Amino acid sequence: MAPLPARSGDAVFANIEHVNSELFTLTYGAIVRQLLTDLEEVEEVNKQLDQMGYNIGIRLIDEFLAKSNVSRCVDFKETAEVIAKVGFKMFLGVSATVTNWDTEGTSCSLVLEDNPLVDFVELPDTCQGLCYCNILSGVIRGALEMVSMKTEVTWVRDMLNGDDVYELRVKLLKQVLEEYPYKDDE
Amino acid sequence: MAPLPARSGDAVFANIEHVNSELFTLTYGAIVRQLLTDLEEVEEVNKQLDQMGYNIGIRLIDEFLAKSNVSRCVDFKETAEVIAKVGFKMFLGVSATVTNWDTEGTSCSLVLEDNPLVDFVELPDTCQGLCYCNILSGVIRGALEMVSMKTEVTWVRDMLNGDDVYELRVKLLKQVLEEYPYKDDE
Repeated sequence: MAPLPARSGDAVFANIEHVNSELFTLTYGAIVRQLLTDLEEVEEVNKQLDQMGYNIGIRLIDEFLAKSNVSRCVDFKETAEVIAKVGFKMFLGVSATVTNWDTEGTSCSLVLEDNPLVDFVELPDTCQGLCYCNILSGVIRGALEMVSMKTEVTWVRDMLNGDDVYELRVKLLKQVLEEYPYKDDE
Repeated sequence: MAPLPARSGDAVFANIEHVNSELFTLTYGAIVRQLLTDLEEVEEVNKQLDQMGYNIGIRLIDEFLAKSNVSRCVDFKETAEVIAKVGFKMFLGVSATVTNWDTEGTSCSLVLEDNPLVDFVELPDTCQGLCYCNILSGVIRGALEMVSMKTEVTWVRDMLNGDDVYELRVKLLKQVLEEYPYKDDE
């Protein structure tokens, strides 16, 4: 069967179930607050948020593949564009820009100017070093792992720390190429 | 100034920022899992979810009043209808039914047949007694407290425990009537 055409992020976003963004923002804030209370160490909170995101990502990829009609990406460059333009739009309602590619084409940045996770958030001084949005990097890492790409995803710029945008660095560590021992139409 | 007409839940929902429902569901699931790990006692998890919801509700009421154009409700009956038809729709994208009023008009049930918080959720036997959606009862309690209604909100039916719907019992304990020492146009 010929693959269905990929749908734009806007089209996909319009056709899926939603909840109010502020409810999500406040609920996410409640998680971070809870972890800060329970774990005390900011570094532990970052780890836990990343792990939560990873667990979400390995499930969310199914929804993404089912609803977006995205077909297999030819390379990591196309994958990054799909995450930025379809994935972010579909789940958070905002798009990212892909930039700062390295020469090998295995590392790039996803830049977000708008980020619903942080609406109304201000970090107290006691939260120095907190990667507030670390759940997002975990989601991307988890989702990509399910399509055979092992990645490292880290925040390099963060508006909560005074930067002018959010910048996520995505580095492809290993790509497992699937080889089928059978033909598609068998 | 004459009050603006109240907007329907659908109209309000269409005009606010959204995120993907599954992302919200999985994120909420991550909170519950985290609390179960950290607190161990199911009763403590119920309390903590309710408290988180309360903290969210006391903030979410502002978004609700700003976006819904709902004017002051004449009584608790109207308040319950507004929560069911506008509040639930605006934040979760689903509506509730108000039913089972007591004779005094101070207790009613909000019945939900669809609940995005629990999509894909199955509780293991070790979670007996868990009120998985307790954040919702907390949100309602918190939001109502900010408009001077002290309430008790409890789950009486829960599809995760085998019931056919979700039923939240809302009991008005005390209503503080605001009296202004000045006239509106002073």
